[in-house]
Amino acid sequence: MDRINLDYASAAPVDERVIAEMGKYWREAIGNPSSVYGAGEEAREVVELARTRVAGLIGAEPRHVIFTSGATEANNLAVIGTALRNKAKGNKVVISALEHMSVLNPAKSLTKQGFELVTVPVDGAGVVDLDKLRAAVDSSTALISVMFANGEIGTIEPVKEIARIARAKGVPFHADATVAAGKVPINVAELDVDLLTVSSNDMYGPQGAGALYVGPRAKMQPVILGGGQERGLRSGTENLAGVAGFGKAAELAALEMADESRRLTGLRDRLIEGVLGSIGDAYLTGHRVKRLPHHASFRFEWVEGESIILFLDMKGITGSTGSACTSKTLQSSHVLLALGLEHGQSHGSLVFTLGRWSGEADVDKAIAEVPPIIKRLREISPLTGRGKAEAK
Amino acid sequence: MDRINLDYASAAPVDERVIAEMGKYWREAIGNPSSVYGAGEEAREVVELARTRVAGLIGAEPRHVIFTSGATEANNLAVIGTALRNKAKGNKVVISALEHMSVLNPAKSLTKQGFELVTVPVDGAGVVDLDKLRAAVDSSTALISVMFANGEIGTIEPVKEIARIARAKGVPFHADATVAAGKVPINVAELDVDLLTVSSNDMYGPQGAGALYVGPRAKMQPVILGGGQERGLRSGTENLAGVAGFGKAAELAALEMADESRRLTGLRDRLIEGVLGSIGDAYLTGHRVKRLPHHASFRFEWVEGESIILFLDMKGITGSTGSACTSKTLQSSHVLLALGLEHGQSHGSLVFTLGRWSGEADVDKAIAEVPPIIKRLREISPLTGRGKAEAK
Repeated sequence: MDRINLDYASAAPVDERVIAEMGKYWREAIGNPSSVYGAGEEAREVVELARTRVAGLIGAEPRHVIFTSGATEANNLAVIGTALRNKAKGNKVVISALEHMSVLNPAKSLTKQGFELVTVPVDGAGVVDLDKLRAAVDSSTALISVMFANGEIGTIEPVKEIARIARAKGVPFHADATVAAGKVPINVAELDVDLLTVSSNDMYGPQGAGALYVGPRAKMQPVILGGGQERGLRSGTENLAGVAGFGKAAELAALEMADESRRLTGLRDRLIEGVLGSIGDAYLTGHRVKRLPHHASFRFEWVEGESIILFLDMKGITGSTGSACTSKTLQSSHVLLALGLEHGQSHGSLVFTLGRWSGEADVDKAIAEVPPIIKRLREISPLTGRGKAEAK
Repeated sequence: MDRINLDYASAAPVDERVIAEMGKYWREAIGNPSSVYGAGEEAREVVELARTRVAGLIGAEPRHVIFTSGATEANNLAVIGTALRNKAKGNKVVISALEHMSVLNPAKSLTKQGFELVTVPVDGAGVVDLDKLRAAVDSSTALISVMFANGEIGTIEPVKEIARIARAKGVPFHADATVAAGKVPINVAELDVDLLTVSSNDMYGPQGAGALYVGPRAKMQPVILGGGQERGLRSGTENLAGVAGFGKAAELAALEMADESRRLTGLRDRLIEGVLGSIGDAYLTGHRVKRLPHHASFRFEWVEGESIILFLDMKGITGSTGSACTSKTLQSSHVLLALGLEHGQSHGSLVFTLGRWSGEADVDKAIAEVPPIIKRLREISPLTGRGKAEAK
């Protein structure tokens, strides 16, 4: 049975064109970018080409792109590196209620070092409340961090408006674009963000590579120290093949985004309508329009998300109940709770993420398989019929 | 012209058997180790197999191996993560004078957080002074970090004796085995170290992967925060292909180490004798016997290391003047200065590192090319004949 992958967000395959690009840099010892002569020069060119390609995807100058080991590290660098460097300026860190744990946990850790953490709420569709954000930010704010889009509910945040608020108050603004970069157009100059996280594997590049855009106004200190690579902001010999593959993936994403986004939006809407049209007490989570083109997320009353995933798995379909990072704990997602859902309502969550190799057949198979699974689960559920109030 | 690589330490090619192992995990979305069902299970098995292989190489239990993005991050985690976690115990960090910058700079950064940094000297061959180490360590010591072997001079440190001192005083001990693991036998249980850094690319695995052995007594906190992967000590979705490749590389190193070490020691000694036998005022740096099997490092009076590398490069031979990380700055290496050399004496440094694909022909070519280069450089050097006192 050919498995159907509707969980691209957890782990995407690497594009063959990216694998070909990487292969060159394993088979020979192409050198260390820090070496002075010969092979070192060639290695530096590989890194700089990749930097130019990643920069191109987000409208940045190459020198403002810092390579990291991935999005988690880039988020840590953005949050911890900026807050500690700007501590003299102020001790408040403002984030949204939807942030990924690689922003949330570094932000929480700062409270042990004298920082105050303020979490700005979102509306029922997951859009950050700009008035509350504006009210939370003041001259003692060291950093605002709000994600570009959320991976559990697909909602795209009003980054440009947030950047305007940040700029007006002179506060650095970080946007975690891990799940958005390569999927929707991003131009850091136009958006006027100071810091932006980009992930390689989320755009069909290799895992183990990511980048932080560090704009001209951003003041930072490193988290990982050593040989002073990456303008002193990320020490460690550059992962040459990884960086080269990431660069190629960024180039491909930039070239193909317009067509691919249109194609995926069509599939996504077909999937959303197909699922919601055939199941009662089913809801889309996140915003219907301000939404990532590859992202369809649902919640179903009176069922457990884990059971849906298990039953889908038996039918050869891979889905997710939310962030893979949080799924182990079986706790209610902080993202779904932030939407104003009760614990019971947040349990029946199903997230489908489409990708470069998704087609109509995949979507149609999901539309066919999900309704009977939900029906069956409701039949055996102890929660069914007792109503929302008890479904906790 | 086929280039001769005598700078394996800067960037080693990835073994074809490792590339084959990695390929599997790019072409399919094998899943995210944190996902609960199906593909997640398979991904966890990949990570755990790799963990078992890396653990096997160093005599550790798999659960004590924490994957990181590389040796630099592992060193940062060991130094910062241990010192901060043990701050209540004491505020002193003790390192050797030869540590890599990914240990040295994190250790220095701790002084801004109230730690005292004590640097223990080494003798002329680079062996750490055990009496001075013993005297430096007391009940307020939060961490001892001394490398297993040094990448610039090849000297292997008395790790077992240091561990004994650390244990007697109840102080955690970290050994950075970046350049040693896979080259010489290491058994963490026998050595009784608490923390040990291992690097993937230094054993023909991919860049962007490394590990920290965190023994049962070690108390740590993470440096990179997020989804709580790797027992909470290193967040971020595991770099599946990278980790799998690292595991394969560790397996191969364990299998082939005995034969390969014997072969490389023979080549190394031929190289050392060939170079020293045909050039006057030339010296081996580091210890003649307690030495990495693939490592031959020299210094030549009255010449600049950079010029040697440049001339060798024109002859198709890649060498190094020391750590690639430091070579950009053209400053005297802190390692060579720690041996008691004057600035002038430390400038004429040449480091050759052999590897899995080095053969006699490579060594013989170097033996033939180095002497005329040194001779020519001395003829044009303004330093020649003025003697050591002025050669600064």
